[in-house]
Amino acid sequence: MYQVDLNSDIGESFGNYKLGLDEEVIKHVSSVNVACGWHAGDPMVMQKTVELAVKEKVSLGAHPGYPDLIGFGRREMKVTFEEAKNYIKYQIGALWAFVQGKGIKLQHVKPHGAFYNMAAKDRELAMAIAQGIYEVDSDFILVGLAGSELTKAGKEVGLKVANEVFADRAYNPDGSLVSRKKEGAVIHDVKVAISRVLRMVKEGKVEAINGEDIFIQADTICVHGDNPQAVSFVNTIRNALQKEGIEVTSMGSFIK
Amino acid sequence: MYQVDLNSDIGESFGNYKLGLDEEVIKHVSSVNVACGWHAGDPMVMQKTVELAVKEKVSLGAHPGYPDLIGFGRREMKVTFEEAKNYIKYQIGALWAFVQGKGIKLQHVKPHGAFYNMAAKDRELAMAIAQGIYEVDSDFILVGLAGSELTKAGKEVGLKVANEVFADRAYNPDGSLVSRKKEGAVIHDVKVAISRVLRMVKEGKVEAINGEDIFIQADTICVHGDNPQAVSFVNTIRNALQKEGIEVTSMGSFIK
Amino acid sequence: MYQVDLNSDIGESFGNYKLGLDEEVIKHVSSVNVACGWHAGDPMVMQKTVELAVKEKVSLGAHPGYPDLIGFGRREMKVTFEEAKNYIKYQIGALWAFVQGKGIKLQHVKPHGAFYNMAAKDRELAMAIAQGIYEVDSDFILVGLAGSELTKAGKEVGLKVANEVFADRAYNPDGSLVSRKKEGAVIHDVKVAISRVLRMVKEGKVEAINGEDIFIQADTICVHGDNPQAVSFVNTIRNALQKEGIEVTSMGSFIK
Amino acid sequence: MYQVDLNSDIGESFGNYKLGLDEEVIKHVSSVNVACGWHAGDPMVMQKTVELAVKEKVSLGAHPGYPDLIGFGRREMKVTFEEAKNYIKYQIGALWAFVQGKGIKLQHVKPHGAFYNMAAKDRELAMAIAQGIYEVDSDFILVGLAGSELTKAGKEVGLKVANEVFADRAYNPDGSLVSRKKEGAVIHDVKVAISRVLRMVKEGKVEAINGEDIFIQADTICVHGDNPQAVSFVNTIRNALQKEGIEVTSMGSFIK
Repeated sequence: MYQVDLNSDIGESFGNYKLGLDEEVIKHVSSVNVACGWHAGDPMVMQKTVELAVKEKVSLGAHPGYPDLIGFGRREMKVTFEEAKNYIKYQIGALWAFVQGKGIKLQHVKPHGAFYNMAAKDRELAMAIAQGIYEVDSDFILVGLAGSELTKAGKEVGLKVANEVFADRAYNPDGSLVSRKKEGAVIHDVKVAISRVLRMVKEGKVEAINGEDIFIQADTICVHGDNPQAVSFVNTIRNALQKEGIEVTSMGSFIK
Repeated sequence: MYQVDLNSDIGESFGNYKLGLDEEVIKHVSSVNVACGWHAGDPMVMQKTVELAVKEKVSLGAHPGYPDLIGFGRREMKVTFEEAKNYIKYQIGALWAFVQGKGIKLQHVKPHGAFYNMAAKDRELAMAIAQGIYEVDSDFILVGLAGSELTKAGKEVGLKVANEVFADRAYNPDGSLVSRKKEGAVIHDVKVAISRVLRMVKEGKVEAINGEDIFIQADTICVHGDNPQAVSFVNTIRNALQKEGIEVTSMGSFIK
Repeated sequence: MYQVDLNSDIGESFGNYKLGLDEEVIKHVSSVNVACGWHAGDPMVMQKTVELAVKEKVSLGAHPGYPDLIGFGRREMKVTFEEAKNYIKYQIGALWAFVQGKGIKLQHVKPHGAFYNMAAKDRELAMAIAQGIYEVDSDFILVGLAGSELTKAGKEVGLKVANEVFADRAYNPDGSLVSRKKEGAVIHDVKVAISRVLRMVKEGKVEAINGEDIFIQADTICVHGDNPQAVSFVNTIRNALQKEGIEVTSMGSFIK
Repeated sequence: MYQVDLNSDIGESFGNYKLGLDEEVIKHVSSVNVACGWHAGDPMVMQKTVELAVKEKVSLGAHPGYPDLIGFGRREMKVTFEEAKNYIKYQIGALWAFVQGKGIKLQHVKPHGAFYNMAAKDRELAMAIAQGIYEVDSDFILVGLAGSELTKAGKEVGLKVANEVFADRAYNPDGSLVSRKKEGAVIHDVKVAISRVLRMVKEGKVEAINGEDIFIQADTICVHGDNPQAVSFVNTIRNALQKEGIEVTSMGSFIK
């Protein structure tokens, strides 16, 4: 039987600022990635987000980002190997504290934004992240772009790894995402997106932007809860997956 | 046999900024309080500081402060109960990550600066801090001003508590510290300071600023490593304690 | 003829976070207070906000706050006289840069949140703020709570001063605002709020919470653009003022 | 008669953290670049630094950096054109406020660290910086690496431009600095450094790392005040320049 995880970034509010329909999207996903106070989130938000995840019985992971609140962690920063490693550790630890006494464990770590995107291509940065996670707890699952330097680094250091795919993004023939600046980068047709996701999960294949079929491992699908349409799309994906007999379940239950 | 802990704040450098003679003072103390990136410290500094403490076989604790880097956590901020609790948890967790895999555990938590001083007098704030610590790990020792609201709150929530005393500070009759703005607040005569410390440890008494003897429990003595004279004073205290047959040892070995 | 200013805080978005219906509320007010990047706002937001104000021909002022983004500048912080003065100067200057070349001048400075509230009661803090503003440009108008220490300090240092009143807040007999924690602090009945505002502007009087009439100078009325109801209330106030023959105009046109 | 400016970065302390021998180095230079609170500096430091510069009769400029205090503004960040422009404006304005009422004007703007280095090569970033400066005050001098994209952009937008040279750094044949990671990047021999500086000022030439002579315009020489040796080197340079009949004077007196 096929199994796949649906993950969404939540806990991205900050102080007086609200962001994301966390309480809606969490009902449709199996795992959530919680911002750790650097690119988004703060201790109050983290506390509430952990409680929400516990209540909704969804698996929790850390979503560490660059120290760039003003840029929401989306801007490339050139940090050293040691900086990357320690930034990851700091943020995982910060979130860990809010999970204590809740009867659960952190399941995974997924770097955010530019941290994630740079590590998909940069082996050194990827190794720094993987080592940082491993040093905190070798039992964490590292979530990275399917087939990227980040997931490779995770395996190399001995971590369990979840390959992440995107329903609404086009792929290059090498498995990287087509830059948002290029035409065709985002797939707006829901039916097309759904059928691509189903094929990724069942066949391990996706059609790249040049028409070529490429192999892709789909352990977890990235979805969003920014607005009502996004949440509705998550629901649609989930229903489509289940109709095809694909079990939507936390990555921790099948990633070994 | 008498036992007492000597503790010092370390890891207060930040980015390009260096502060404190950590590598000197650590040789003379039994416990260190490590800044957690809010009022001082950053992930690189925390990583190095933890390694230094491990190498020097000194017990480690978290030193969480207010979110006020520009004011070094020394300025009063009015935060809510929940904010205080979550700020404490966040910072303990962040430091915890750097201790993983090092074969040691965090021993204690000592709030920094205005967080510590306000909590010494404000029962609600003290309870928030104590509960935050307890929720992360009920085995931590809470370090607070001897006989203050903070140590009381620690006991109330079920934490082990270390009463902290100051060698170079005058006390009010109620056991609070004489404000630095008042004359006589700081004891500059090393001999007087030493004899006060010895009496606090052995007799559990100190002469308050009005000449009255008050009871005081001295589990740990706060010392500083800001400059060479401060470090030299730590060495002098340590020698004086040992000469009197008082064992200088980590609070974790005798606080139950 | 009666004249009064309507002012609203705008430019409180930050990075990826949006806050306030700036483009709506600005159509109804005569002056806006722009966040300067400390408690809210950032350079991108400041740039857009200044352009919006220029386009809508509304007078601009700086809205400096405490260095507390996580607390939106609403938490009391104990800063020194010099710190307060320099924090004010820094933020005014930062906003000033975005006004250059736009053919306008900054009209006023209104401290934000806890900075404003503390300065209403604390003469030393009020003097620090007033001196900071004066040193940057003695032509600025200082906006403070009507009859407070802040407006007194403004006059004392030689600044023009605008006394601010609140339509929806109850007053203590000494002219201070009734704490939001007390019952009756907020006036929810729009008709009552409007009639109070009209009386403040025309008679210079308001009924305090104990039923007593007190004198109050209403140079500018604080209104909000947080949500559609708030914006609609601003429109209602404006219409009511105009119907009574009260001209709604920038404070700079009548404060001497 | 030859003229050249000597400039040094000062005001890089932050809160409780002290950095640089500002009071020493300022006695030997003609212009200073003052950190504006983003990569270093804070309002208290800015206030004191401006007063020091006024007292020592040295010309003042802004030294804006990336929003990266933890990395001291030395790490590359990918910011947009508008972000770069607005970040520059914000910081110039913030410093401007501290100069008001002091009887002086800001003379120049020199981007800091990664902002400076990236703009030396990236035309778009350079144009953003130049336009930002120009919009605040078209009378400012833009200080950039001699012959770089940054100084070109400055001229293009209509700013006065000061070409900056380094006494202790090797040059590539295209006029760029040899990366610090490469051997020979830093010139440690004081005599060699001095003779290179004299030749740059008098002949407009310097020997590149490949032995080839290249043209270079030396309007201002970058010197440092980090430590006593650095300050002593500044004094040595200054004396050597004067002995050769080269006047050391603020760039504002000869850059047109």
